[in-house]
Amino acid sequence: MTLGEFAFIETLLRPLAAGSPGALDLGDDAGLIDPPPGASLVVTKDAMVAGRHFLDDDPADLVARKLLRVNLSDLAAMGAEPLCYLLALIRPPSIDDAWLEAFTRGLAEDQGIFGIGLLGGDTAGTPGPLTLSLTAIGHLPKGRALRRDAARAGDLIVVSGTLGDGFLGLQVLKGALAADGPDRDHLIGRYRLPEPRMALGRRLRGLAHACIDVSDGLAADLGHILERSQVGAVIEAARVPLSTAARPLPGAREAALTGGDDYELLFTVPAEAEADVAALALGLDVPLTVLGRITAELGLRVLDEAGNPLALAKPGWTHF
Amino acid sequence: MTLGEFAFIETLLRPLAAGSPGALDLGDDAGLIDPPPGASLVVTKDAMVAGRHFLDDDPADLVARKLLRVNLSDLAAMGAEPLCYLLALIRPPSIDDAWLEAFTRGLAEDQGIFGIGLLGGDTAGTPGPLTLSLTAIGHLPKGRALRRDAARAGDLIVVSGTLGDGFLGLQVLKGALAADGPDRDHLIGRYRLPEPRMALGRRLRGLAHACIDVSDGLAADLGHILERSQVGAVIEAARVPLSTAARPLPGAREAALTGGDDYELLFTVPAEAEADVAALALGLDVPLTVLGRITAELGLRVLDEAGNPLALAKPGWTHF
Repeated sequence: MTLGEFAFIETLLRPLAAGSPGALDLGDDAGLIDPPPGASLVVTKDAMVAGRHFLDDDPADLVARKLLRVNLSDLAAMGAEPLCYLLALIRPPSIDDAWLEAFTRGLAEDQGIFGIGLLGGDTAGTPGPLTLSLTAIGHLPKGRALRRDAARAGDLIVVSGTLGDGFLGLQVLKGALAADGPDRDHLIGRYRLPEPRMALGRRLRGLAHACIDVSDGLAADLGHILERSQVGAVIEAARVPLSTAARPLPGAREAALTGGDDYELLFTVPAEAEADVAALALGLDVPLTVLGRITAELGLRVLDEAGNPLALAKPGWTHF
Repeated sequence: MTLGEFAFIETLLRPLAAGSPGALDLGDDAGLIDPPPGASLVVTKDAMVAGRHFLDDDPADLVARKLLRVNLSDLAAMGAEPLCYLLALIRPPSIDDAWLEAFTRGLAEDQGIFGIGLLGGDTAGTPGPLTLSLTAIGHLPKGRALRRDAARAGDLIVVSGTLGDGFLGLQVLKGALAADGPDRDHLIGRYRLPEPRMALGRRLRGLAHACIDVSDGLAADLGHILERSQVGAVIEAARVPLSTAARPLPGAREAALTGGDDYELLFTVPAEAEADVAALALGLDVPLTVLGRITAELGLRVLDEAGNPLALAKPGWTHF
């Protein structure tokens, strides 16, 4: 059996909109949002193409959840709380009903975890690869959004969790790197199912100066903050936090500096807020590591353990 | 020269966001919207795939404008005014810089016409066909959205403009139908550059019971209203408005009943509002034609000139 467009929407997508009154049961031209009073809405749109952003044989439920989570991570980086999302699913004939069922099951699972519902979207066919585009909408009090352009000289540069796992997990999946047992599971899990830092993003409102999520790689994403804020930075490579699974692997440090797909939050805080950062790490049970400092001098310098500048092979990646 | 992802965003997309302060120069993780006080936001997301929703050799600026306009038409069908949009552009290697320049020029032109700005989005590469996904966001006073589920028995069924031109224009472009001179231009123009009925949609708030835009074809889209409203309808095929370009073509009546891509508004009003509809047509200089009536009896009956029911070959189309 192959579900047609309308049957797919009615059978599999409509239940995802059941908790969203503004979705009008996906039965109208558009969805409605009544913004919370005094709120700004935060809107992001990230696309994923099979073979580029995920592997053709990645489990459908995890593809769905990654798609949702990379968008939620953008909301977290602005300090926003999730509200709803819209989905465009462009599918080749090879995507069958079982795949669609697993995909929507994954969305349902993450809707429960993140308190978000489907508002609308579109479906179409393609002779090309499966292509997914998701628009996530969040909210926060007006004027309180975290941005990339507010870093100041003297700020501490802080990152959550560990870096490099996403990129290394992809290498393991591709067979380019070997890892076994729980380490293998950890790395692949970080690649397939990132953990958007929603609670941390919310708590950084009023504390962080600038914030971004690490999707293109630490050096590239820090570069975005520096460029937008018209400042520079010095970080110490040895401080970049590695997981116990990543640490023994060849290229782990480079992966942590330039690999993508980690979806940790990278932010700057005034130096006097260091104790607040430590308290936040304890309170949220999320590792927060100071990597270095924002400088008035432009440019990013990454120092090795002897204090000498490291040259990075590539600053980040592009999907284009 | 081929623009990379970041250069494309900086050179061609950033100027489209210049009038949208919430876009943060496309330099952040997400865009910000400060909703007008007392407003509901209206959000729609329509995708287009080359070879399915437009022809590979359609001019890039018109592809861009059609993409924007089919989404704006969804906003019009809810009675909303445009606010901003987000774009995902998934391009194959065959899409060169000249194409991207023409595409963004088309967006710029329509941004001026419709008073809308770019808020954000995403770009990626694909080995498949060019795939475009646009999310359009509009606003209207809370509780005033036009919906599909509010038609009542006795309502008049009204449509704007003429129907069938979009479908016939596509047949002309494909060489399946012959048309010359201004007729040819008119039909192809209707296919490539639909005219979303923004002013009409806005004016229908408080006047129309139910409303939809004709994208899947009159019979299918009226069917959506009937299904959502739990009513039926009788319409007279001879009343369906045809353009002078469409009228002489074989299959014009069928195209008007079941062809897609017209983006006219189809709505129902209480019978006593017929004079208001006539006044609105005059005031907006938009033809508004009464096609028939909503009935308590379920089902759609299309009557020929002798009053006998017509059987439709296909109720509408699907892109899936």
